[in-house]
Amino acid sequence: MSFDPTTLPDVSGLTVGILGGTGPQGRGLAYRFARAGQKVRIGSRSSERGAQAAAELAKMPGVVSGLVNGEHVTGGDNAYACGADVVIVAVPWEGHGELLSSLAEHLAGKIVVDCVNPLGFDKQGPYVLPVPEGSAAEQAAALLPDSRVCAAFHHVSAVLLIAPEVAAMDLDVLVLGDDREAVAVVQALAGRIDGMRGLHAGRLRNASQVEGMTANLIAINKRYKAHAGVRITDV
Amino acid sequence: MSFDPTTLPDVSGLTVGILGGTGPQGRGLAYRFARAGQKVRIGSRSSERGAQAAAELAKMPGVVSGLVNGEHVTGGDNAYACGADVVIVAVPWEGHGELLSSLAEHLAGKIVVDCVNPLGFDKQGPYVLPVPEGSAAEQAAALLPDSRVCAAFHHVSAVLLIAPEVAAMDLDVLVLGDDREAVAVVQALAGRIDGMRGLHAGRLRNASQVEGMTANLIAINKRYKAHAGVRITDV
Repeated sequence: MSFDPTTLPDVSGLTVGILGGTGPQGRGLAYRFARAGQKVRIGSRSSERGAQAAAELAKMPGVVSGLVNGEHVTGGDNAYACGADVVIVAVPWEGHGELLSSLAEHLAGKIVVDCVNPLGFDKQGPYVLPVPEGSAAEQAAALLPDSRVCAAFHHVSAVLLIAPEVAAMDLDVLVLGDDREAVAVVQALAGRIDGMRGLHAGRLRNASQVEGMTANLIAINKRYKAHAGVRITDV
Repeated sequence: MSFDPTTLPDVSGLTVGILGGTGPQGRGLAYRFARAGQKVRIGSRSSERGAQAAAELAKMPGVVSGLVNGEHVTGGDNAYACGADVVIVAVPWEGHGELLSSLAEHLAGKIVVDCVNPLGFDKQGPYVLPVPEGSAAEQAAALLPDSRVCAAFHHVSAVLLIAPEVAAMDLDVLVLGDDREAVAVVQALAGRIDGMRGLHAGRLRNASQVEGMTANLIAINKRYKAHAGVRITDV
Protein backbone atom coordinates (compact mmCIF):
# COMPACT_ATOMS: atom_id res chain seq x y z
CA MET A 1 0.00 0.00 0.00
CA SER A 2 1.08 3.56 -0.51
CA PHE A 3 1.40 6.01 2.37
CA ASP A 4 -2.06 6.89 3.66
CA PRO A 5 -2.13 9.14 6.74
CA THR A 6 -5.83 8.40 7.28
CA THR A 7 -4.91 4.87 8.40
CA LEU A 8 -2.93 6.27 11.35
CA PRO A 9 -4.48 6.53 14.83
CA ASP A 10 -6.02 9.72 16.24
CA VAL A 11 -3.38 11.08 18.59
CA SER A 12 -4.87 14.53 19.13
CA GLY A 13 -5.69 13.71 22.76
CA LEU A 14 -2.23 12.43 23.68
CA THR A 15 0.14 14.34 25.92
CA VAL A 16 3.71 14.64 24.66
CA GLY A 17 6.53 14.76 27.18
CA ILE A 18 10.00 15.96 26.28
CA LEU A 19 13.15 14.96 28.16
CA GLY A 20 15.61 17.76 27.62
CA GLY A 21 12.78 20.09 26.72
CA THR A 22 14.84 23.17 27.44
CA GLY A 23 17.47 22.36 24.79
CA PRO A 24 17.11 23.68 21.22
CA GLN A 25 15.66 20.48 19.71
CA GLY A 26 13.37 19.74 22.64
CA ARG A 27 12.10 23.29 22.90
CA GLY A 28 11.48 23.42 19.17
CA LEU A 29 9.53 20.15 19.12
CA ALA A 30 7.56 21.26 22.18
CA TYR A 31 6.60 24.48 20.40
CA ARG A 32 5.43 22.69 17.26
CA PHE A 33 3.41 20.12 19.21
CA ALA A 34 1.83 22.81 21.36
CA ARG A 35 1.00 24.79 18.24
CA ALA A 36 -0.61 21.66 16.80
CA GLY A 37 -2.84 21.52 19.86
CA GLN A 38 -1.13 18.68 21.78
CA LYS A 39 -0.75 18.93 25.53
CA VAL A 40 2.98 19.14 26.22
CA ARG A 41 5.06 18.44 29.32
CA ILE A 42 8.51 20.00 29.24
CA GLY A 43 11.12 18.11 31.23
CA SER A 44 14.47 19.41 32.40
CA ARG A 45 17.14 18.47 34.91
CA SER A 46 15.98 21.52 36.83
CA SER A 47 12.30 21.61 37.66
CA GLU A 48 12.39 25.42 37.69
CA ARG A 49 13.95 25.65 34.24
CA GLY A 50 11.37 23.19 32.91
CA ALA A 51 8.52 25.27 34.29
CA GLN A 52 10.07 28.48 32.98
CA ALA A 53 10.52 27.08 29.47
CA ALA A 54 6.88 25.97 29.49
CA ALA A 55 5.70 29.41 30.55
CA GLU A 56 7.73 30.98 27.74
CA LEU A 57 6.45 28.53 25.11
CA ALA A 58 2.84 29.02 26.20
CA LYS A 59 3.12 32.69 25.21
CA MET A 60 4.54 32.03 21.74
CA PRO A 61 2.47 32.74 18.61
CA GLY A 62 0.05 30.02 17.63
CA VAL A 63 0.06 28.11 20.90
CA VAL A 64 -3.50 27.50 22.04
CA SER A 65 -3.66 29.08 25.48
CA GLY A 66 -5.02 27.50 28.65
CA LEU A 67 -7.29 24.48 28.49
CA VAL A 68 -10.48 24.53 30.58
CA ASN A 69 -9.00 22.57 33.43
CA GLY A 70 -5.33 23.28 33.16
CA GLU A 71 -2.44 24.62 31.19
CA HIS A 72 -1.62 23.50 27.67
CA VAL A 73 2.15 23.54 28.10
CA THR A 74 3.51 22.71 31.51
CA GLY A 75 6.99 21.97 32.76
CA GLY A 76 8.95 20.35 35.52
CA ASP A 77 11.79 17.93 35.94
CA ASN A 78 12.39 15.03 33.58
CA ALA A 79 10.38 12.65 35.76
CA TYR A 80 7.43 15.04 35.35
CA ALA A 81 7.74 14.80 31.56
CA CYS A 82 7.57 11.00 31.90
CA GLY A 83 3.95 11.40 33.00
CA ALA A 84 2.99 12.02 29.36
CA ASP A 85 1.60 9.37 26.99
CA VAL A 86 4.51 9.65 24.57
CA VAL A 87 7.95 10.75 25.78
CA ILE A 88 10.53 12.20 23.40
CA VAL A 89 14.20 11.91 24.37
CA ALA A 90 15.91 15.12 23.22
CA VAL A 91 18.93 15.25 25.51
CA PRO A 92 22.58 15.53 24.47
CA TRP A 93 24.26 12.21 23.68
CA GLU A 94 26.52 12.69 26.70
CA GLY A 95 24.46 11.51 29.64
CA HIS A 96 21.82 9.84 27.43
CA GLY A 97 22.29 6.39 28.94
CA GLU A 98 22.61 7.63 32.50
CA LEU A 99 19.42 9.69 32.30
CA LEU A 100 17.37 6.90 30.75
CA SER A 101 18.58 4.37 33.33
CA SER A 102 17.49 6.69 36.11
CA LEU A 103 14.02 7.13 34.55
CA ALA A 104 13.38 3.49 33.59
CA GLU A 105 10.58 3.00 36.12
CA HIS A 106 8.88 6.26 35.14
CA LEU A 107 9.01 5.26 31.48
CA ALA A 108 7.65 1.72 31.90
CA GLY A 109 4.74 1.13 29.54
CA LYS A 110 5.29 4.41 27.70
CA ILE A 111 6.06 5.02 24.07
CA VAL A 112 9.57 6.48 24.14
CA VAL A 113 10.83 8.31 21.04
CA ASP A 114 14.56 8.74 20.84
CA CYS A 115 15.77 11.58 18.60
CA VAL A 116 19.35 11.71 19.85
CA ASN A 117 22.24 11.80 17.36
CA PRO A 118 25.54 10.44 18.69
CA LEU A 119 27.90 12.83 16.90
CA GLY A 120 31.32 14.21 17.55
CA PHE A 121 32.81 17.39 16.14
CA ASP A 122 36.37 18.31 15.28
CA LYS A 123 37.95 20.86 12.99
CA GLN A 124 36.79 18.81 9.97
CA GLY A 125 33.18 19.02 11.13
CA PRO A 126 30.73 16.41 12.42
CA TYR A 127 31.28 12.67 12.49
CA VAL A 128 29.46 9.64 13.86
CA LEU A 129 30.42 8.33 17.28
CA PRO A 130 30.49 4.56 17.80
CA VAL A 131 27.74 3.24 20.11
CA PRO A 132 28.21 -0.21 21.66
CA GLU A 133 24.47 -0.97 21.32
CA GLY A 134 24.50 0.12 17.66
CA SER A 135 22.62 3.40 18.03
CA ALA A 136 21.21 5.77 20.62
CA ALA A 137 17.79 4.24 20.03
CA GLU A 138 19.05 0.70 20.60
CA GLN A 139 20.79 1.87 23.74
CA ALA A 140 17.46 3.28 24.91
CA ALA A 141 15.72 0.00 24.11
CA ALA A 142 18.34 -1.93 26.07
CA LEU A 143 18.00 0.35 29.09
CA LEU A 144 14.20 0.53 28.94
CA PRO A 145 13.02 -3.06 28.50
CA ASP A 146 9.51 -2.18 29.73
CA SER A 147 9.06 0.77 27.35
CA ARG A 148 8.04 0.82 23.70
CA VAL A 149 11.07 2.47 22.14
CA CYS A 150 10.97 4.09 18.70
CA ALA A 151 13.30 6.57 17.05
CA ALA A 152 12.26 9.67 15.09
CA PHE A 153 12.70 13.44 14.65
CA HIS A 154 16.47 13.21 14.06
CA HIS A 155 16.66 15.53 11.08
CA VAL A 156 14.42 18.35 12.20
CA SER A 157 16.08 21.75 12.26
CA ALA A 158 15.79 23.29 15.73
CA VAL A 159 16.11 26.73 14.13
CA LEU A 160 13.08 26.20 11.90
CA LEU A 161 11.05 24.47 14.61
CA ILE A 162 11.21 27.43 16.96
CA ALA A 163 10.65 30.12 14.31
CA PRO A 164 7.02 31.26 14.55
CA GLU A 165 7.08 32.59 10.99
CA VAL A 166 7.84 29.11 9.57
CA ALA A 167 4.32 27.92 8.83
CA ALA A 168 5.21 24.37 7.81
CA MET A 169 8.20 22.05 8.24
CA ASP A 170 9.15 20.85 4.76
CA LEU A 171 10.41 17.36 5.60
CA ASP A 172 9.56 13.76 6.33
CA VAL A 173 10.21 12.20 9.71
CA LEU A 174 11.73 8.74 9.49
CA VAL A 175 10.25 6.59 12.24
CA LEU A 176 12.16 3.46 13.26
CA GLY A 177 10.74 0.76 15.43
CA ASP A 178 9.75 -2.87 15.81
CA ASP A 179 6.43 -2.21 17.62
CA ARG A 180 4.08 -1.43 14.74
CA GLU A 181 1.40 0.10 16.96
CA ALA A 182 3.85 2.43 18.69
CA VAL A 183 5.39 3.33 15.33
CA ALA A 184 1.96 4.30 14.00
CA VAL A 185 1.39 6.58 17.00
CA VAL A 186 4.71 8.31 16.39
CA GLN A 187 3.96 8.63 12.68
CA ALA A 188 0.63 10.21 13.53
CA LEU A 189 2.29 12.62 15.96
CA ALA A 190 4.74 13.71 13.28
CA GLY A 191 1.78 14.27 11.00
CA ARG A 192 0.25 16.67 13.53
CA ILE A 193 2.98 19.17 12.70
CA ASP A 194 2.21 21.13 9.54
CA GLY A 195 4.31 19.99 6.60
CA MET A 196 5.63 16.83 8.21
CA ARG A 197 4.89 13.25 7.27
CA GLY A 198 5.89 10.38 9.52
CA LEU A 199 7.11 7.41 7.48
CA HIS A 200 7.98 3.99 8.86
CA ALA A 201 11.58 3.62 7.76
CA GLY A 202 12.48 0.24 9.18
CA ARG A 203 13.29 -1.55 12.39
CA LEU A 204 15.22 -0.17 15.30
CA ARG A 205 18.34 -2.00 14.13
CA ASN A 206 18.33 0.41 11.18
CA ALA A 207 18.33 3.52 13.40
CA SER A 208 22.09 4.06 13.43
CA GLN A 209 22.39 5.41 9.92
CA VAL A 210 19.37 7.67 10.38
CA GLU A 211 21.00 9.17 13.46
CA GLY A 212 24.30 9.42 11.61
CA MET A 213 22.74 11.13 8.59
CA THR A 214 22.42 14.20 10.80
CA ALA A 215 26.18 14.65 10.33
CA ASN A 216 25.61 14.85 6.57
CA LEU A 217 22.80 17.34 7.00
CA ILE A 218 25.04 19.50 9.19
CA ALA A 219 27.71 19.35 6.46
CA ILE A 220 25.07 20.34 3.90
CA ASN A 221 23.85 23.18 6.13
CA LYS A 222 27.37 24.54 6.37
CA ARG A 223 28.10 24.16 2.68
CA TYR A 224 24.84 25.60 1.38
CA LYS A 225 23.82 27.91 4.23
CA ALA A 226 20.63 25.94 4.72
CA HIS A 227 18.50 24.24 7.36
CA ALA A 228 18.35 20.98 5.47
CA GLY A 229 15.66 18.36 5.88
CA VAL A 230 14.92 15.10 4.12
CA ARG A 231 11.95 14.30 1.89
CA ILE A 232 11.37 10.78 0.64
CA THR A 233 10.29 10.78 -3.00
CA ASP A 234 7.85 8.39 -4.70
CA VAL A 235 5.99 7.90 -1.39
CA MET B 1 26.30 30.17 -0.56
CA SER B 2 23.22 28.33 -1.68
CA PHE B 3 23.39 25.48 -4.17
CA ASP B 4 24.22 26.87 -7.60
CA PRO B 5 24.71 24.26 -10.34
CA THR B 6 26.22 26.88 -12.66
CA THR B 7 29.35 26.93 -10.49
CA LEU B 8 30.03 23.26 -11.26
CA PRO B 9 32.45 22.25 -14.03
CA ASP B 10 31.39 21.30 -17.56
CA VAL B 11 31.59 17.52 -17.61
CA SER B 12 29.73 16.94 -20.87
CA GLY B 13 32.90 15.73 -22.57
CA LEU B 14 33.89 13.21 -19.91
CA THR B 15 33.63 9.47 -20.42
CA VAL B 16 31.97 7.53 -17.61
CA GLY B 17 33.14 4.00 -16.91
CA ILE B 18 31.07 1.58 -14.85
CA LEU B 19 32.55 -1.37 -12.98
CA GLY B 20 29.79 -3.93 -12.70
CA GLY B 21 27.98 -2.27 -15.56
CA THR B 22 25.91 -5.37 -16.28
CA GLY B 23 24.25 -5.38 -12.83
CA PRO B 24 20.94 -3.55 -12.24
CA GLN B 25 22.45 -0.40 -10.70
CA GLY B 26 25.35 -0.19 -13.14
CA ARG B 27 23.20 -0.79 -16.18
CA GLY B 28 20.66 1.78 -14.98
CA LEU B 29 23.29 4.46 -14.39
CA ALA B 30 24.90 3.67 -17.75
CA TYR B 31 21.57 4.15 -19.49
CA ARG B 32 20.91 7.50 -17.83
CA PHE B 33 24.39 8.80 -18.57
CA ALA B 34 24.20 7.64 -22.16
CA ARG B 35 20.80 9.29 -22.47
CA ALA B 36 22.32 12.49 -21.09
CA GLY B 37 24.89 12.38 -23.90
CA GLN B 38 27.92 11.13 -21.95
CA LYS B 39 30.22 8.59 -23.50
CA VAL B 40 29.94 5.41 -21.42
CA ARG B 41 32.20 2.39 -21.00
CA ILE B 42 30.45 -0.64 -19.53
CA GLY B 43 32.72 -2.94 -17.57
CA SER B 44 32.02 -6.52 -16.56
CA ARG B 45 33.97 -9.51 -15.33
CA SER B 46 33.28 -10.97 -18.75
CA SER B 47 34.38 -8.87 -21.68
CA GLU B 48 31.67 -10.43 -23.83
CA ARG B 49 28.89 -9.63 -21.38
CA GLY B 50 30.17 -6.06 -21.09
CA ALA B 51 30.11 -5.63 -24.84
CA GLN B 52 26.68 -7.21 -25.08
CA ALA B 53 25.20 -4.96 -22.39
CA ALA B 54 26.62 -1.95 -24.22
CA ALA B 55 25.08 -3.04 -27.50
CA GLU B 56 21.71 -3.44 -25.79
CA LEU B 57 21.89 -0.08 -24.05
CA ALA B 58 22.88 1.69 -27.26
CA LYS B 59 19.54 0.67 -28.77
CA MET B 60 17.42 1.92 -25.87
CA PRO B 61 15.12 4.94 -26.27
CA GLY B 62 16.80 8.31 -25.90
CA VAL B 63 20.39 7.14 -26.26
CA VAL B 64 22.17 9.25 -28.83
CA SER B 65 23.40 6.77 -31.38
CA GLY B 66 26.91 6.51 -32.82
CA LEU B 67 29.34 9.41 -32.54
CA VAL B 68 31.23 10.45 -35.63
CA ASN B 69 34.32 8.46 -34.82
CA GLY B 70 33.05 5.77 -32.56
CA GLU B 71 30.28 4.32 -30.50
CA HIS B 72 28.54 6.18 -27.71
CA VAL B 73 28.18 3.21 -25.38
CA THR B 74 30.87 0.57 -25.50
CA GLY B 75 31.67 -2.36 -23.29
CA GLY B 76 34.38 -4.74 -22.26
CA ASP B 77 35.94 -6.07 -19.11
CA ASN B 78 36.31 -4.02 -15.95
CA ALA B 79 39.82 -2.92 -16.92
CA TYR B 80 38.32 -1.51 -20.12
CA ALA B 81 35.88 0.58 -18.07
CA CYS B 82 38.85 1.98 -16.12
CA GLY B 83 39.90 3.76 -19.30
CA ALA B 84 37.16 6.33 -18.69
CA ASP B 85 37.68 9.71 -17.00
CA VAL B 86 35.36 8.94 -14.12
CA VAL B 87 34.82 5.35 -12.98
CA ILE B 88 31.73 4.32 -11.01
CA VAL B 89 31.99 1.24 -8.80
CA ALA B 90 28.63 -0.55 -8.98
CA VAL B 91 29.60 -4.09 -8.03
CA PRO B 92 28.09 -6.22 -5.25
CA TRP B 93 29.66 -5.67 -1.83
CA GLU B 94 30.97 -9.22 -1.91
CA GLY B 95 34.15 -9.00 -3.95
CA HIS B 96 34.29 -5.18 -3.77
CA GLY B 97 37.69 -5.07 -2.13
CA GLU B 98 39.18 -7.84 -4.23
CA LEU B 99 38.10 -6.24 -7.50
CA LEU B 100 39.39 -2.79 -6.58
CA SER B 101 42.74 -4.19 -5.44
CA SER B 102 43.14 -5.92 -8.76
CA LEU B 103 42.35 -2.70 -10.67
CA ALA B 104 44.41 -0.28 -8.57
CA GLU B 105 46.93 0.44 -11.32
CA HIS B 106 44.23 0.97 -13.92
CA LEU B 107 42.44 3.38 -11.61
CA ALA B 108 45.48 5.47 -10.66
CA GLY B 109 44.78 9.17 -11.23
CA LYS B 110 41.10 8.59 -11.95
CA ILE B 111 38.06 9.90 -10.16
CA VAL B 112 36.48 6.79 -8.67
CA VAL B 113 32.86 6.99 -7.49
CA ASP B 114 31.81 4.26 -5.11
CA CYS B 115 28.05 3.59 -4.95
CA VAL B 116 28.22 0.26 -3.15
CA ASN B 117 25.99 -0.39 -0.12
CA PRO B 118 27.33 -3.01 2.30
CA LEU B 119 24.01 -4.60 3.32
CA GLY B 120 22.91 -7.97 4.54
CA PHE B 121 19.42 -9.44 4.34
CA ASP B 122 17.58 -11.84 6.62
CA LYS B 123 13.93 -12.62 7.22
CA GLN B 124 13.53 -9.24 8.98
CA GLY B 125 14.78 -7.42 5.90
CA PRO B 126 17.92 -5.42 5.17
CA TYR B 127 20.56 -4.38 7.67
CA VAL B 128 23.96 -2.70 7.59
CA LEU B 129 27.07 -4.87 7.47
CA PRO B 130 30.10 -3.76 9.46
CA VAL B 131 33.06 -2.63 7.34
CA PRO B 132 36.51 -2.54 8.97
CA GLU B 133 37.44 0.62 7.05
CA GLY B 134 34.16 2.32 8.07
CA SER B 135 32.37 2.19 4.72
CA ALA B 136 32.68 0.77 1.24
CA ALA B 137 33.94 4.16 0.07
CA GLU B 138 36.65 4.29 2.73
CA GLN B 139 37.66 0.76 1.82
CA ALA B 140 37.99 1.93 -1.78
CA ALA B 141 40.08 4.91 -0.69
CA ALA B 142 42.36 2.64 1.33
CA LEU B 143 42.83 0.25 -1.59
CA LEU B 144 43.24 2.99 -4.21
CA PRO B 145 45.71 5.48 -2.72
CA ASP B 146 46.47 6.92 -6.16
CA SER B 147 42.83 7.49 -7.12
CA ARG B 148 40.50 10.32 -6.21
CA VAL B 149 37.76 8.42 -4.41
CA CYS B 150 34.28 9.88 -3.88
CA ALA B 151 30.99 8.21 -3.00
CA ALA B 152 27.62 8.89 -4.63
CA PHE B 153 24.54 7.38 -6.33
CA HIS B 154 23.69 5.11 -3.38
CA HIS B 155 19.96 5.80 -3.25
CA VAL B 156 19.09 5.67 -6.92
CA SER B 157 16.42 3.12 -7.81
CA ALA B 158 17.71 0.73 -10.47
CA VAL B 159 14.12 0.11 -11.54
CA LEU B 160 13.49 3.78 -12.27
CA LEU B 161 16.91 4.33 -13.85
CA ILE B 162 16.37 1.71 -16.54
CA ALA B 163 12.73 2.60 -17.28
CA PRO B 164 12.68 4.64 -20.52
CA GLU B 165 9.29 6.15 -19.66
CA VAL B 166 10.69 7.77 -16.49
CA ALA B 167 11.64 11.18 -17.84
CA ALA B 168 13.33 12.50 -14.71
CA MET B 169 14.78 11.00 -11.53
CA ASP B 170 13.12 12.82 -8.63
CA LEU B 171 15.97 12.77 -6.12
CA ASP B 172 19.18 14.34 -4.92
CA VAL B 173 22.50 12.52 -5.10
CA LEU B 174 24.57 12.89 -1.94
CA VAL B 175 28.22 13.18 -2.93
CA LEU B 176 30.83 12.42 -0.29
CA GLY B 177 34.48 13.22 -0.63
CA ASP B 178 37.49 15.11 0.64
CA ASP B 179 38.80 16.18 -2.80
CA ARG B 180 36.68 19.23 -3.56
CA GLU B 181 37.53 19.28 -7.25
CA ALA B 182 36.63 15.62 -7.72
CA VAL B 183 33.44 16.11 -5.69
CA ALA B 184 32.42 18.97 -7.99
CA VAL B 185 32.93 16.77 -11.05
CA VAL B 186 30.72 14.06 -9.54
CA GLN B 187 28.10 16.64 -8.57
CA ALA B 188 28.11 17.92 -12.13
CA LEU B 189 27.76 14.40 -13.50
CA ALA B 190 24.73 13.78 -11.27
CA GLY B 191 23.29 17.00 -12.57
CA ARG B 192 23.55 15.70 -16.15
CA ILE B 193 20.73 13.26 -15.40
CA ASP B 194 17.32 14.90 -15.64
CA GLY B 195 15.77 15.55 -12.23
CA MET B 196 18.93 14.88 -10.22
CA ARG B 197 20.97 17.34 -8.21
CA GLY B 198 24.39 16.43 -6.88
CA LEU B 199 24.92 17.88 -3.40
CA HIS B 200 28.17 17.78 -1.45
CA ALA B 201 27.07 15.97 1.72
CA GLY B 202 30.30 15.79 3.65
CA ARG B 203 33.64 14.06 3.82
CA LEU B 204 34.32 10.44 3.01
CA ARG B 205 34.32 9.62 6.73
CA ASN B 206 30.59 10.39 6.63
CA ALA B 207 29.86 7.90 3.82
CA SER B 208 28.88 4.98 6.04
CA GLN B 209 25.47 6.29 7.05
CA VAL B 210 24.67 7.31 3.47
CA GLU B 211 25.44 3.77 2.32
CA GLY B 212 23.45 2.38 5.24
CA MET B 213 20.44 4.59 4.55
CA THR B 214 19.79 2.36 1.56
CA ALA B 215 18.53 -0.24 4.06
CA ASN B 216 15.92 2.27 5.24
CA LEU B 217 14.90 3.07 1.69
CA ILE B 218 14.47 -0.64 0.97
CA ALA B 219 12.28 -0.90 4.09
CA ILE B 220 10.27 2.09 2.87
CA ASN B 221 9.96 0.58 -0.60
CA LYS B 222 8.56 -2.60 0.88
CA ARG B 223 6.19 -0.83 3.26
CA TYR B 224 4.84 1.72 0.79
CA LYS B 225 5.26 -0.10 -2.52
CA ALA B 226 7.55 2.65 -3.75
CA HIS B 227 10.89 3.30 -5.41
CA ALA B 228 11.99 5.76 -2.78
CA GLY B 229 14.59 8.45 -3.25
CA VAL B 230 15.85 11.27 -1.07
CA ARG B 231 15.41 15.00 -1.61
CA ILE B 232 17.17 17.51 0.59
CA THR B 233 14.87 20.39 1.50
CA ASP B 234 15.84 24.06 2.01
CA VAL B 235 18.75 23.65 -0.45
